[in-house]
Amino acid sequence: MSSDCICAPATAPGGAISIVRISGAGCHDIIDSVVDFRHGNAASASGFSVKFGVVPELDEVLVSIFKAPHSYTGEDMAEISCHASPFIVSGILERLCAAGCRLARAGEFTQRAFVAGKMDLSQAEAVADLIASDSAASHKLAFSQLRGAYSKKLRELRSQIVELSALLELELDFSEEEVEFADRSRLKSMVQETLLEIQKLAESFKLGNAFKKGIPVAIVGAVNSGKSTLLNALLDEDRAIVSDIPGTTRDTVEEVLTLDGVKYRFIDTAGLRETADTVEQMGIERSLNQIEQASVVIVLLDATAPLEALTPVIEGVKARLRPDTRVIWVRSKSDLLPGTKTGYYVPKTLVSGTNGNKIGAFCSQLGIPEAIELSALTGQGLDKLKEAISKPDSDSLAADAVLVTNQRHYDALRRAAEDLKRVRSGLESALPTDLIAEELRSGVSALGEIFGEILPDDILGTVFSRFCVGK
Amino acid sequence: MSSDCICAPATAPGGAISIVRISGAGCHDIIDSVVDFRHGNAASASGFSVKFGVVPELDEVLVSIFKAPHSYTGEDMAEISCHASPFIVSGILERLCAAGCRLARAGEFTQRAFVAGKMDLSQAEAVADLIASDSAASHKLAFSQLRGAYSKKLRELRSQIVELSALLELELDFSEEEVEFADRSRLKSMVQETLLEIQKLAESFKLGNAFKKGIPVAIVGAVNSGKSTLLNALLDEDRAIVSDIPGTTRDTVEEVLTLDGVKYRFIDTAGLRETADTVEQMGIERSLNQIEQASVVIVLLDATAPLEALTPVIEGVKARLRPDTRVIWVRSKSDLLPGTKTGYYVPKTLVSGTNGNKIGAFCSQLGIPEAIELSALTGQGLDKLKEAISKPDSDSLAADAVLVTNQRHYDALRRAAEDLKRVRSGLESALPTDLIAEELRSGVSALGEIFGEILPDDILGTVFSRFCVGK
Repeated sequence: MSSDCICAPATAPGGAISIVRISGAGCHDIIDSVVDFRHGNAASASGFSVKFGVVPELDEVLVSIFKAPHSYTGEDMAEISCHASPFIVSGILERLCAAGCRLARAGEFTQRAFVAGKMDLSQAEAVADLIASDSAASHKLAFSQLRGAYSKKLRELRSQIVELSALLELELDFSEEEVEFADRSRLKSMVQETLLEIQKLAESFKLGNAFKKGIPVAIVGAVNSGKSTLLNALLDEDRAIVSDIPGTTRDTVEEVLTLDGVKYRFIDTAGLRETADTVEQMGIERSLNQIEQASVVIVLLDATAPLEALTPVIEGVKARLRPDTRVIWVRSKSDLLPGTKTGYYVPKTLVSGTNGNKIGAFCSQLGIPEAIELSALTGQGLDKLKEAISKPDSDSLAADAVLVTNQRHYDALRRAAEDLKRVRSGLESALPTDLIAEELRSGVSALGEIFGEILPDDILGTVFSRFCVGK
Repeated sequence: MSSDCICAPATAPGGAISIVRISGAGCHDIIDSVVDFRHGNAASASGFSVKFGVVPELDEVLVSIFKAPHSYTGEDMAEISCHASPFIVSGILERLCAAGCRLARAGEFTQRAFVAGKMDLSQAEAVADLIASDSAASHKLAFSQLRGAYSKKLRELRSQIVELSALLELELDFSEEEVEFADRSRLKSMVQETLLEIQKLAESFKLGNAFKKGIPVAIVGAVNSGKSTLLNALLDEDRAIVSDIPGTTRDTVEEVLTLDGVKYRFIDTAGLRETADTVEQMGIERSLNQIEQASVVIVLLDATAPLEALTPVIEGVKARLRPDTRVIWVRSKSDLLPGTKTGYYVPKTLVSGTNGNKIGAFCSQLGIPEAIELSALTGQGLDKLKEAISKPDSDSLAADAVLVTNQRHYDALRRAAEDLKRVRSGLESALPTDLIAEELRSGVSALGEIFGEILPDDILGTVFSRFCVGK
C-alpha cells in the first residue's frame, strides 16, 4: 500500500463552503507550499488545530491540521475549507497536485484508515452506508455498524469457530496416536449452535437490506378501489416532511415514503388502473403477481362494491402470500358509505361501516381476520393504516438486533454456514479430523473476510471503489 | 441586529462530508448539549481548535471551535463536520434548534460579519461573487474585491469628495461674512477630476459585468458559411477542459465557453441557419441585429463564395458596429480552397488563400483591414481566432484595473456622478454655497452606500438575501 500524498474534494459542488482533503506523510509541507499562513505553518502546527491562510490570488482558507496517528486515515492529514466555487476547488487541487499530491481514488481515505487499523472493513463499509443513509432505519443500522456493534457480533461467532478449530487441531497434533481428544457430541452441539446463529444472521439480510433500500409494499385492489387516492394521501403528508431535508429527490419510478423512520418502496401496480371490463381479470392477475415481490401487501376492498365482487381479489391475494408476507386488509371509500358524508339525513339503522361491529361483520362475511376502515379522501383511518404498515418494522428495528445489510457479508455468511454444515455432516459420518479441520478453517476465513482480516487485494479494491471520492 | 444563535448547513447535499455552521453568543453551550466530546467541551476549548465528538445515536463528528471576536462573524462560532447524509445533517440541525438555535437566513453569517465590522458591504458582496465565480476572470474580480482593492479605490474617491465638502463647509461656517474661502477655480478642477474618475469606474461596469456573466459574442455569416462547425470546434475543445471541474453545467440556451480564463456567451444566431433562397436576406438581417447586443462579433466570410456575395454581409456588419464593438473578420472554409485539401494536383498559380498575400488581396478587395484564415474542419487558424477573441480581454484583466461588477454599485456611482455634475454646474453658475454643499454630501452618501456605511435596512436585507444559506 503506497503512502504518497492524496487529495480530493470531500464536499459536493455548490453550497457556501467546500472542503479539500489531503492525507499522507509530508502533506503538511505540501500545504505550506500552497497556503500562505498569517502565523507559523502547517508543518509545525499541532494536531487538531485550525489555521487561517491565503492561497495566493485564489482564496482565503481555513486549514484543519491532523498529525499521524491521530487522524481519520492515521496519517498526517489536513482539511482545507474554502469558498464553494468549483473554480476555486479545482484551483486548490491543481496547486496541491503541482506540489506533489495526486488525486485520491474513490474511498481511498477510508481505505487508508482501514489499512492503518483505524477501523475494520465492515466499519469502513458502514461509512459509505452512513453517507448514503436516508431514513432513520438505514442510518441506525449503518451507525451501529460504524460504532462496532456488528463487528463485535461477528468476532464472537468467529471465536466460537476458532475454539472448535483449536479442539480439532489439538487432536491433529497427536494424530499418530489415533486418539479423539475432543468430545465429538459436544463438538456437534457447538457446531450446530454456531451454525444456527450464522444462519439467523444471514437470514437477517432480507430485512436489513430492505431497511437500507426500502421495504417493498404493494397496494392491491380492483380498478377504482382507491389505490392512487391512498398513495397520494400517504405521499402528500410525506412530501411535506421530506422536502425539509435538502437534497432528497423523489425522481424514481417507484414511489418512496418514510413512515416512522423506515423507508418504504411502493411497487407500481399501475397496470391495474388501465384495465377495464373484460380485461379486468387480467389486470387483477398482474396486480396480484406483485404480491410475490412485496414484504407488505395492502389490499383495498371497495366499501361500495358488492361483497361477491371482492371475493376473487381476496382469494387471489391469499393464494399468493408467502409465509413472511404481511397483509393489511383495508375497507376503502368509507366516506361513500351511507350516512357518513352524503350531506343528507340517513336513518342510523341504515348506516354501516361506522363502528367496529359493522366492519367486523364485513370481515367475517369475507373470511378475513380484520380490516382497517379507510377514507383516503377525509383522512379517516390513515394514521391507523400507517401504523399497521410501520409498527412491526420499527419494533424490530428498536429491538437493537444486529442486521446484515451488505450483500458481500451475506455471501460470506452463507459460505461460512455451508462450511459448518459440512463440518456437521463430517462429524456425523466420522470423516478424518484433518478434513473437518479444513472446513472449519474455511469458515473462519469466510467470517474474517467480513471485517477484512483475510482479503484478496481485488476484493478490497471493489469494496472501496463503491465509495465516493473524498471519503 | 439580534445576536441569537443561528445554524445552517454550509455545504451542498452530497459528497463525503457536510458542514453545519453555528454562530452567536452561547453557541458553544448549545454544541456541548448536542455533542458528547471525548475530552473536555466546546465552551472551555480554545479558539481555532478541533474536537472529536459523538452526536448520540447520530454520527461521529469533528467540531472546529472559534471564539469571539476571532471568527468569520466576529461572534462565538463552530463548524460541525459530519458524514454527508441529508438525514444526519437534518438531525444535527434539529438537535441544535431544539437546544436553542434557529435556522439562519440566506447570507446571515456574512451579514453578521458585516455588522461586526469584519468586512465592508462590497467585501461581503464579493463573498457571494467568489462562491459563484466560474472563470478565472470572474474569480479574479471577486477575490480582489474581497481582499479590499475595490473598497480602497472607492474610499479614495470618497475622501476626495469629503475634502471638497470640507472646503465648502468651512465657507458656510463664515457665511455671514460673505467671503469665498475656497478657491473656486481649484474647486472646479477638483470636482472635474473626481467626476471623471467616478465616470470611468461606472463605465467599467459594462466590462466588469461581462467578465462576471460572460462576454457576449455573435458569430455572423451567411447560411452555410461554417458558423455551427466553428462553434462546435470551439466548444469541443472547451468541453474537455470544463468537464474536469465538478458541478459546472452547460444546460443553458446560450453556448458558454471559457478562453484564457474569460467566459464568453455565444449569442444564438440560429435564425440564419433556417433561411434559404429568397428569404436569405431576411435571415442575414436577423443575424446582423445580434451585433447590437454583442461585445465581440466574428464575421465568417465563405472562402468558396463569390466576392460579390460577401459584400452585403460586410456592409451590413459595418453599419451596425458600435464604437466599442470588436469585430473579427474570418475567411472560413479555407480547406475547400483549391490546392489545400483536394487531393488532386493543382498548379500553384491557381492556389489562393494559402499565404499572407492572397488573404491580403482578399481583404483589400472586400475593404476590410485584415482577416483570419480558418478551417474549422482541419483546425487551421483556430488558435489564432481564439487569441483574437480573448487577448484584449485577458490583457485588460491582467492590467489589475478596478472594475465594477455589481449593479448596485453601478447605480450608486451614477448617482454620485450626477451629484458631482450638479456641483460642477453649481460652481459655474455661482449657486449658493449651502446648495452646492448639499449635493456634495449626497455624493459622499452615494459612495458610502457601496461599502455599507449609510444604508437603509431594507437594502441590506436585499443584498444578503441573494446569498446562499450557510454563508
